Amino acid sequence: MSIKVNENYKNLAQNYLFKTIAEKVSAYTQANPDKKIIRLGIGDVTLPLTPSVIEAMHKAVDEMGHQETFKGYGSEAGYDFAIDAVRNHYEKSGVILKKNEVFISDGAKSDCGNITDIFGDNEILIPDPVYPVYLDSNVMCGRKVQFIAANQENGFLPLPDAIEKKSYIIYICSPNNPTGAVYNKEQLKQWVDFANESESVIIFDSAYEAFIHGDYPHSIFEIEGSRTCAIEICSLSKTAGFTGTRMGWTIVPEELVCSGTALNPMWNRRQSTKFNGTAYIIQRGGQAALSEEGFKECQENIAYYMENAKLIASALDEKGIWYTGGISSPYIWLKCPNNMSSWEFFDYLLNELQIVGTPGCGFGPQGEGYFRLTSFGSREATLEAIERMKKGL
Amino acid sequence: MSIKVNENYKNLAQNYLFKTIAEKVSAYTQANPDKKIIRLGIGDVTLPLTPSVIEAMHKAVDEMGHQETFKGYGSEAGYDFAIDAVRNHYEKSGVILKKNEVFISDGAKSDCGNITDIFGDNEILIPDPVYPVYLDSNVMCGRKVQFIAANQENGFLPLPDAIEKKSYIIYICSPNNPTGAVYNKEQLKQWVDFANESESVIIFDSAYEAFIHGDYPHSIFEIEGSRTCAIEICSLSKTAGFTGTRMGWTIVPEELVCSGTALNPMWNRRQSTKFNGTAYIIQRGGQAALSEEGFKECQENIAYYMENAKLIASALDEKGIWYTGGISSPYIWLKCPNNMSSWEFFDYLLNELQIVGTPGCGFGPQGEGYFRLTSFGSREATLEAIERMKKGL
Repeated sequence: MSIKVNENYKNLAQNYLFKTIAEKVSAYTQANPDKKIIRLGIGDVTLPLTPSVIEAMHKAVDEMGHQETFKGYGSEAGYDFAIDAVRNHYEKSGVILKKNEVFISDGAKSDCGNITDIFGDNEILIPDPVYPVYLDSNVMCGRKVQFIAANQENGFLPLPDAIEKKSYIIYICSPNNPTGAVYNKEQLKQWVDFANESESVIIFDSAYEAFIHGDYPHSIFEIEGSRTCAIEICSLSKTAGFTGTRMGWTIVPEELVCSGTALNPMWNRRQSTKFNGTAYIIQRGGQAALSEEGFKECQENIAYYMENAKLIASALDEKGIWYTGGISSPYIWLKCPNNMSSWEFFDYLLNELQIVGTPGCGFGPQGEGYFRLTSFGSREATLEAIERMKKGL
Repeated sequence: MSIKVNENYKNLAQNYLFKTIAEKVSAYTQANPDKKIIRLGIGDVTLPLTPSVIEAMHKAVDEMGHQETFKGYGSEAGYDFAIDAVRNHYEKSGVILKKNEVFISDGAKSDCGNITDIFGDNEILIPDPVYPVYLDSNVMCGRKVQFIAANQENGFLPLPDAIEKKSYIIYICSPNNPTGAVYNKEQLKQWVDFANESESVIIFDSAYEAFIHGDYPHSIFEIEGSRTCAIEICSLSKTAGFTGTRMGWTIVPEELVCSGTALNPMWNRRQSTKFNGTAYIIQRGGQAALSEEGFKECQENIAYYMENAKLIASALDEKGIWYTGGISSPYIWLKCPNNMSSWEFFDYLLNELQIVGTPGCGFGPQGEGYFRLTSFGSREATLEAIERMKKGL
């Protein structure tokens, strides 16, 4: 007899999408050290942290250097100042949250992955295409996953009408990564009603809410009835350029009860046992990003990225390539030209134009034949990429 | 039908130990706002971060504020500079690690909790008493846990001789939290041999290695044969005062194979999917703490704490109270006087002397009747606590 490993890992598809891309790019770079690669692949920001955040973190570092102001362990759920900053941010959308409903973390990816811990063996509904962590983290714990097709026909915004009414964990990402599609209030209300009627739980990923343009809900908790059926996961990665700084949060309303058990204390117990809070310095940075001045700075950065999105869109227009997104999201979701598959187009862009994008099929089967470009590059790199595309596509 | 929750959570004992203590202290403070509490309970440091760490983090914050030096996503396993800092630290104990064997994280508590993810349904051996996260994280995933009694008879250092030879996940913490007992090479070799013979896996928690005084192994990888049977989890929390700064690491050797599956790529996959790396700023701080100068500063802080431990020990000597620890560990592990139970002594110390300690029973059944005091207080607070104990015990 020997130690048993988690056999579910064997059911994971190949490698994690972004790891595979990194490996392909690395191989190309080694073979072609003189070629200048432009990276519009992984959704990573390029603008530096804003002045408010930098100032707050310097101050926090100083505090950590003096005994009177040094901070050891904080609450696993975060400091009150960080929790209150998040609550104030939600109040701008009319959402009132209690202190104990907000759990500060080191990012949405951790929370998306770890939230499976508190559930039993349920059926999972995952939009297709979408951020791969929903699928992989559920495959890892052996859950039965069912895809909800998001495609050109339904505007990449599937609704629950055709779904059998039983209990599921339902993942929703709006604005969607990778397609950029955003649900409006009426559409989200359909999902909330479906979840309440079927005793399902929605896990709502609002990581791109700061990019919303127009009258769309920034939080699932803007929707009536959501407090009995939804958890929300968000982060500062895209909002404030925190991809390498790491702060996010999860909201579990007190009213959310499954099979007689409230989920808020369960998540609290999970985090108290298997997590020790986000670094004090980082929480101070996050507080600053969500302050009035800090958030204004963040919005300027977002405007810069959205200008990039417009530039990419105009190049695709010129080439007659179909695309969507780029309005309430930093991503352009395009149909690969000449019926290329996603990886064919990836290889073509890398080898011929030295541009790195993300193959749509990495986000789910419905993503095959599509491709994601990000507006998170610098203006200069984006402009050069556009020139290359105009010439080479 | 409704969504199923993780029913294993219902088998968790009461609340997480340190949460319960915090609640009791908070209730006492509210009822007695004029009384000055001395906290020698939770193992939290009080000295500020050292100058090298502060300088490195200021520099890193500056880098994050400029486009040319800004850092977005890093590798989930950490930056090479952080990984190399850890590898250099191990080399001082003669342990050579490969780059891909070191996984930087936000702390040992996360890794201790999350490591269960990669295993199947195995039997678990947990020393008693010990850090409660080993037990709770295994109860949460429904594992069958068996305690290994650590008590005055075996010097709080249980050995595998009486254990049935089958495959287990075996947790070892040395220097032990809470007892301060340290395994020597010969004793650890017995565990390594047992693990290899029984195809078990040792999860070795070396969080207190920097406190070791004398010729004891700082890492399980100093022991021959350990690379085929052990994972090591460590952190800077106690070594460098990072309790509120959050950096740790897990080491999974390439040779560690269970049921034909290598664990190193599994942990890599786990972390790549459900974690997004430790903040750049924090990794720079960690690198500085492990530098030659930084580590010297850390050792000065440790010497300060160990002087506190001596002071506490001398007060207990004076009172004729039995204790151990305080030599290669920041904790003093004492037998509650007058046959009090752990919580009775906790309440007595809190109500009569306004000193907060940690009830031994919170670390496992064998801890009943014992009590943990930490040397992590300030000198001033420790001296005042000693005065109170000398008068009041």
